[in-house]
Parts: sequence; structure tokens; C-alpha cells
Amino acid sequence: MRVLVTGAAGFIGSAVLAKLAGHHEVVGLDARAPGSGPGWITGDLGEPETLALAEAARPDALIHLATVPGGAAEADPELAWRINVEATRKLIDCLARRRSGVRVVFASSIAALGRLEEPVGDATPVRPHLIYGAHKALMETWLATLSRRGDVEAISLRLPGIVARPRAASGLKSAFLSDLFHAALANEAFTCPVGRDATTWLMSVSKTAENIVHGLIAPSAEPFAATLPAVRASVGDLVAEITSQTGYDAARITYEPDQAIEADFGRFPALQAERAERLGFRSDESLASLISSALETIRKST
Amino acid sequence: MRVLVTGAAGFIGSAVLAKLAGHHEVVGLDARAPGSGPGWITGDLGEPETLALAEAARPDALIHLATVPGGAAEADPELAWRINVEATRKLIDCLARRRSGVRVVFASSIAALGRLEEPVGDATPVRPHLIYGAHKALMETWLATLSRRGDVEAISLRLPGIVARPRAASGLKSAFLSDLFHAALANEAFTCPVGRDATTWLMSVSKTAENIVHGLIAPSAEPFAATLPAVRASVGDLVAEITSQTGYDAARITYEPDQAIEADFGRFPALQAERAERLGFRSDESLASLISSALETIRKST
Repeated sequence: MRVLVTGAAGFIGSAVLAKLAGHHEVVGLDARAPGSGPGWITGDLGEPETLALAEAARPDALIHLATVPGGAAEADPELAWRINVEATRKLIDCLARRRSGVRVVFASSIAALGRLEEPVGDATPVRPHLIYGAHKALMETWLATLSRRGDVEAISLRLPGIVARPRAASGLKSAFLSDLFHAALANEAFTCPVGRDATTWLMSVSKTAENIVHGLIAPSAEPFAATLPAVRASVGDLVAEITSQTGYDAARITYEPDQAIEADFGRFPALQAERAERLGFRSDESLASLISSALETIRKST
Repeated sequence: MRVLVTGAAGFIGSAVLAKLAGHHEVVGLDARAPGSGPGWITGDLGEPETLALAEAARPDALIHLATVPGGAAEADPELAWRINVEATRKLIDCLARRRSGVRVVFASSIAALGRLEEPVGDATPVRPHLIYGAHKALMETWLATLSRRGDVEAISLRLPGIVARPRAASGLKSAFLSDLFHAALANEAFTCPVGRDATTWLMSVSKTAENIVHGLIAPSAEPFAATLPAVRASVGDLVAEITSQTGYDAARITYEPDQAIEADFGRFPALQAERAERLGFRSDESLASLISSALETIRKST
């Protein structure tokens, strides 16, 4: 299978490329240009030339990761619309026009669900609050419609918080969760913008890449979207496990809860991701294995 | 209240303008130009100049009816996206930028719900099948997000089949329902593209306009969208009531069911529009009063 991966130079994209290597023919696409040759397209998805190159690559499947994320989308909603909605629609349109039934794995986000106050399951309504979450919700609906019509075979996967991202500003408002891992490994002071009892949903980048690659063969069926299972943990439990695995001194953490960040990222209720599990998607096995995997990612990259 | 009405020269728009007259200050907007003066804007919503005029009108509320409807959207999805999604987003953006909390009454459609095989209620998922229905679903989600954020106070109303539309091609795939009324009044032969036992949801244009105007004062609250109540009737019952009210000879009707049209417009199940009823929206009182009202609309316009 020839797989086109957008956002291929990014944090998740690199992990996806590593999982695909040796199993599939891969074409990476990214606005940044770390690669070259026949297996790489450098370009802005908002530009027609980039779309033409993507179409010319004649992919059998698309893994669409490229996005303007949460914080960046709030700061520049017009740019975010241009990439998250308009470019996404055009990319899928030009692949579907070439041949119908192209498999599409779309990296949606739990931000599509909005602020969650009750246990989340497959019946939880999609009620975004962030611009980014709304864009993801719109594209889920669009891809589901095209799937019903037979134009594509899509599956939208709502990703939870992924750890540990690189320290560089990712534009994600939830980046503090990754920053905690970096602070622990570097034994630096850390200011936590949510309290100890804040709860969150997490997945290691390695497990995330596995799930995304599984999206290439998972059934594409009504409602064509699923919230991925995740490890739910309180910040207190997260800190305890990180300090246990790294020897980091928890006293170096200062808690300065920010109401807005707590509302968006610190009140995640219980999660029953039954549909995703039925389709073969998995969470990390435990908080301990998740943290070990996330720490390993950082160690390898430095 | 100063109310901007888009699609104001259209079938529903004209009826809405008539209901608003004398109660509100009205600014009509339409790509066609039957009006002029301070209370009228002629222009394509896809053009920045039109949006600038809309913003300059400083409306307190927007009734957004302008759309590229079902059949026309299938024929030209790019044009439909430009008006139904892009222009809608920009229009709302420029009104919300001027002052937050603008009331928005958005004419959505039961096409957003998709093909309905089971009784429809407030828990029925939004699963569009038509391009037009997907566009309406996207804008419902977008308006709900903006409402949660306090940028606008929106309510999306999913309209059923409205009768009786003018005979001229409306671009709606469901136009045959209106054409039946015209055939009856003109005592002409009529080919019905669905069978006698096909079922549909209907509302007279007069009741539709009442509901849309009620949208200006109805509560704007989660989930910011409601399926309007409608009269459910089989084509057989519809024909019996029309012939009874007009003296039309039912033998002049030939039934030539088209599978695709039956799938999209001929299999409407029972409808419980509880949310909309709680918010004060109403269906026509009976099939008889609906047909009498629809026939009256045609008689007045000829």
C-alpha cells in the first residue's frame, strides 16, 4: 500500500513513519523540509502546487496529521481554518477524485468533544469549545459524509494528550503535560498550570503511532469516528510515577492552577472507549508503561 | 431590533419579510435584486463587498436563509461550499466581530440528519448523506461552538419539506412535493417520483416563516439546534387531501418511483420534535390546514 502521511516531519508524524517503514511504501508531506527524494513532498497544504504533488503521488491511503493546533488556532483562527478545514477538504477531494474509496485516517482530537463533565462514552455528543476542536468536528462530519457516499473510506481518531512532545512550543495548549517529563529528566523546577487533583487522558507517542497505523486496516463504518482509549490519571499520580521512574524531586514542582487551562485540560472524567476498542485500538497498558515509554522517547531524541 | 435577512428575495425569505414587517427594522439581502433603498442589499454573499455592506448595516440579529440547495449543491459542490460554508462563516464572523452576542437564526435542514430509518427524536445523530446536508451540519456545529464561546447567540432550525414552493426550478431535489400542488391547481398531469406509500415531513411556508421569526426570541441553548416539528404524511394521504380541497382528478397522477429520490425524500419515519416544541416552535395543526395554507400561497402569488 502507498501511504501519504501529512505532518510527516512532526512529533507524531515521525513516529508514524518509523512504524510504517518496511511495511508500506510511504510518501511524507510537510511544510518543513527535513527530507527529499521521491518519498517526500515539501510544501504548504494550503497551496495548490502541494495538492498537485500529493495527487501525483497516487496514494492508496492518507494519514492526515497536519494541523494548526489548539493554542495556535485560537491565536490565528483564519490560518487555522485555511489548513484545518479548507486544505483538508481540498486534499481529500483531490485524492478521492483520482479514485474512490481511498482510505483516510484522520487525526481528530478529544477537543472535538469539548468540555467534559460526565463519563465519556460512544454516545457522548460532539460539543467543541475550542476553535481547534470545532475544526476537527467539522472534518469528522465531512469525512463521514464522504464515506457514506463511497468517495473515501475514512476513520477519524480522537487523540488524547500525547506525551512526551518535544520541548519546543508545539502550539498546543496542553503542552504543559509534556513539559513535566522534560523538567523531570533535566531535574529542573516546574510550574504546573493545573492542580494535583486535575485529571487528564494520556497516550504515549509510540502507542499513538501504533493506533494510527492500525487505522489503515480498521473497519471504516458508521459513525466513522472514535474516541481512542487512553490512560486516565490525576496529575498527582502522574507526578508520583514520574518521580519514581526518574528520581526527580517532586518538591521542585509549584502548582499554580489556571482556571481556563483546568477547564480545558484538567477535568477529564472516566472514559469508556468501547467503539475504538472493538475496532482494535488500544491504550498504553498502564500509567507506569506509558510514562516509561514517554521517557524513552525523550531520551532517544537527545 | 434591526434584523438582517439573507436570501430575502427567495420563497421563504419573502414570507419572513412579510411577518417581520411592522415589528422589526429589516434589512434584506439577496443576490437577486428586487428591492432597493436603505433596507436592501443586493450582492453575492461570497463577495467581500457584500459582507462589508452587511456589517455596515449593524444588525442586532441575522436570519440566514441564503443557500445553495440540495440538487444544486450535488451538481456544483464547489459553489455550494463557497456559499453554504465559506460565506456563511465569513458573514457570521464579521457580524460577531462588530459586537458579540448577535442573535443568529440559521435555516438548517433535515438533510443534516441524513437517511432516516427509525423514529426521529432529539437524540437522533446527525449523519448527512447529501452534500447540502453535510454543509448544514457543519454550520450547525460551527454556530454551536461560537455560541458556547459567547461570540453569537445562535439557533439552527432544521426545516422539513416546505410547500408550496414556486414552480420554477428551486434546485431542491424535494421540489416534486410542491409541484404536486401546482399540478392540482392547474389540473395538469403529474408524474410522482415516489410511490403512494412514501412518507414525508411537511410544513407550510407560512408556518415556516412564523417559526423562523420565533427563532429571534427562542432560547439559544445547548445544543443550539433543533429539528422542527412537521406534519408527517404519506403521499397517498397528501393526494387525497389535495384532491378533496381542489377537485383535482387523482387519476391524472402517474407514479414512477425513483429509488434515489425515495431513499432521500420518501422514507421519513415518525418524528418527535420535543426540543423544538419546548422552545415554542410549532408544526401546522393538521394535514388539512397545511394543504389549505400551501394552496393559498400559490393562489395569492398568481
